[in-house]
Amino acid sequence: MSKDQEFLPVAGGGLLDRRLFLKRSLSFSTAVLIAPNVLADTEDTRSAWMQKPGAPFSNYGQPSPYEQATIRWTMGNSMAPGNGVSWTPLHKLEGMITPSGLHFERHHNGVPKIDPKQHKLLIHGLVNQSLVFSMDDLLRYPMQSCYCFIECGGNSNAAWRSEPIQTELGYFHGMASCSEWTGIPLRLLLAEAHVKGRAKWLIAEGADAAMMNISLPLDKAFDDCILAIYQNGERIRPEHGYPLRLIVPGWEGVVNVKWLRRLHLSAMPTMARNETAKYTELLPSGKARQFSFVMEAKSLITQPSYGYKLEQHGLYQISGLAWSGRGKIVKVEVSADGGKSWAEAELQSPVLAKCFTRFRLPWQWQGQKAVLKSRATDETGYVQPERDVLLAERGEHGYFHYNAIVSWEVSAEGGIRHVYA
Amino acid sequence: MSKDQEFLPVAGGGLLDRRLFLKRSLSFSTAVLIAPNVLADTEDTRSAWMQKPGAPFSNYGQPSPYEQATIRWTMGNSMAPGNGVSWTPLHKLEGMITPSGLHFERHHNGVPKIDPKQHKLLIHGLVNQSLVFSMDDLLRYPMQSCYCFIECGGNSNAAWRSEPIQTELGYFHGMASCSEWTGIPLRLLLAEAHVKGRAKWLIAEGADAAMMNISLPLDKAFDDCILAIYQNGERIRPEHGYPLRLIVPGWEGVVNVKWLRRLHLSAMPTMARNETAKYTELLPSGKARQFSFVMEAKSLITQPSYGYKLEQHGLYQISGLAWSGRGKIVKVEVSADGGKSWAEAELQSPVLAKCFTRFRLPWQWQGQKAVLKSRATDETGYVQPERDVLLAERGEHGYFHYNAIVSWEVSAEGGIRHVYA
Repeated sequence: MSKDQEFLPVAGGGLLDRRLFLKRSLSFSTAVLIAPNVLADTEDTRSAWMQKPGAPFSNYGQPSPYEQATIRWTMGNSMAPGNGVSWTPLHKLEGMITPSGLHFERHHNGVPKIDPKQHKLLIHGLVNQSLVFSMDDLLRYPMQSCYCFIECGGNSNAAWRSEPIQTELGYFHGMASCSEWTGIPLRLLLAEAHVKGRAKWLIAEGADAAMMNISLPLDKAFDDCILAIYQNGERIRPEHGYPLRLIVPGWEGVVNVKWLRRLHLSAMPTMARNETAKYTELLPSGKARQFSFVMEAKSLITQPSYGYKLEQHGLYQISGLAWSGRGKIVKVEVSADGGKSWAEAELQSPVLAKCFTRFRLPWQWQGQKAVLKSRATDETGYVQPERDVLLAERGEHGYFHYNAIVSWEVSAEGGIRHVYA
Repeated sequence: MSKDQEFLPVAGGGLLDRRLFLKRSLSFSTAVLIAPNVLADTEDTRSAWMQKPGAPFSNYGQPSPYEQATIRWTMGNSMAPGNGVSWTPLHKLEGMITPSGLHFERHHNGVPKIDPKQHKLLIHGLVNQSLVFSMDDLLRYPMQSCYCFIECGGNSNAAWRSEPIQTELGYFHGMASCSEWTGIPLRLLLAEAHVKGRAKWLIAEGADAAMMNISLPLDKAFDDCILAIYQNGERIRPEHGYPLRLIVPGWEGVVNVKWLRRLHLSAMPTMARNETAKYTELLPSGKARQFSFVMEAKSLITQPSYGYKLEQHGLYQISGLAWSGRGKIVKVEVSADGGKSWAEAELQSPVLAKCFTRFRLPWQWQGQKAVLKSRATDETGYVQPERDVLLAERGEHGYFHYNAIVSWEVSAEGGIRHVYA
């Protein structure tokens, strides 16, 4: 293939072959080309921080002071300061992992300060043998690791509004984060308690002041749930459930109970506030969506997105995240012309089930107006819907489980706006 | 297979089949069994932290105050406080990722506080076009992610001593850590500078006050090196090279130059201090080992290890880490009888090249004296050597590239000691 052929667009709006950057080098025209007569000066320039010894070693590292804009954006309730959320700044991140310090939070009554020496886990209800475990007991058990996303069922709910919200992507889609979780397969502990045949649900309860609880079908509990003790290699952070969190891969965030203290085996769900008043929606048909646990396939272009500006014409890499609660992402397509044509993006390996998958695609922007979209397909064949399709199915007044395609409009000046297109 | 058969050891000293925990539940005899008449009381117990609202949201999270023992152990030089190392507490961690705050450090003159708006990368020497890049320029380039370990060439050097050191594992093997690194494939920038045919080496230099530099063969630079901007999802931490680090997957830590400011293309290596006075060793033959870049296959049992105590008889899970600078780990064997017999451990998926791989194996300990070892094999067929084999090849007075098998002796009381066995 000649150089000219490689630059032939594979879809409208300047999208190029996803393997382009893998095969060869391209000029991004961003570097300053240096003439020989100024090279010597450039070589000898030493910055201020090279003139004196640097800072000493640290027992636990922190981000650069120049990165203080990369934080969780918190949205509390002044009447109940422990009730609210904080958002992951997905538009500032790259790769697949969310640093634990930036993993989103959703609390109902703040973050308890739990002494792990006093914390206990009780398994009771429809079991032949009630059990209580200390953290030291649990640390004896066999562990497994899994990379998985957690996404709040209420993530992206600003997209139900009639006008597209203009804010950084992380601050309306950032109730989704991805970690390596390590802990005990839940089925091991359930089997040790000898669950009775008529048990169909498991009620999980946290040790926060809200005693957050949810109901989980027992099949899922025996499938791939983990009682996590470690997150991204170290013990779980307090705001993510220290010392013990129920991880329910692929299911809405609320069932991933933090500060886990009790597992009650039951024939029926408990009908807690978080499965009746919340996380339940009326459909256009008049029926209610309840126990809609699985987070369906979704994708977002994170760079460029609202708040970025394209300063030059030339080559860009579009980068984003895709995930599905049903398994692996098998395809992400990108459009630069508002959905008229699509090109397949490169998926960063390893592609893991129920986990963030980074996708990337080369794009040539020469000042054309463009509408960027991404569309994920998962291994069940499910395709992320356009917004109008989602609204037709779920109504105009939804709140939970918004997973429609997100559109960014690029102006001739390189500015980026959120649009419904 | 009957229950009794499953418990038949697969190797001496009580090692059990690696799939045992995957197939069925087992009693670890650690939980307290609760009689019905005390269950009601246990259910109603509410801890102090459930009686009042918890802490508010945070913009950037931190570990629990109860985990303050999980820190990097720093070892500086009082005459030159910015010269030394800090160690990853591998014995306290689980899973594959090292949290960035606990990734090991090796500095020669401290951690520079670099303003990313002023930082530049220069590519010069045997090129047709010298180039200089700002960080904003670099952020336009296509990125890739790779999970890889970085291990200092001097890691584990206490194991060259004639007597086995008695200290927590992370504090003598913890100059090895593993992250997701995201950045620009180096070959893209080299091709843009049009490297001349007679260039064979690349001299990389950091922007610290020591102006740390190293020589890298150009083949490796064109292979899988990355100019990393992100670590574990966020911008690289200052002590790991903010804002730009050269990542050389699988090669000794010193070549992964932090605070990268210059890449000089050259026909010959620069013969810097760190490739002559250091990182070079005299062999028993009288020849010197120099430019021994690749970190050979290695493994460590992290739990249990020195500092742990087995408090009860019964089932345990042995857990550890393996890695190879040559590619993927294909097998980790564990011995509980000092190397007389071996059983194959379960490898946690995904198993990635030049990356930490977590291995685990069930073990039944009934008070028997045991010597635990692990032995890694990589995809080239290389097998991690016993200590006496390594010393026969490399001499008694080595300092770098120690990768022999590590042995833990378990006493009848459950105490654990480091031994040469």
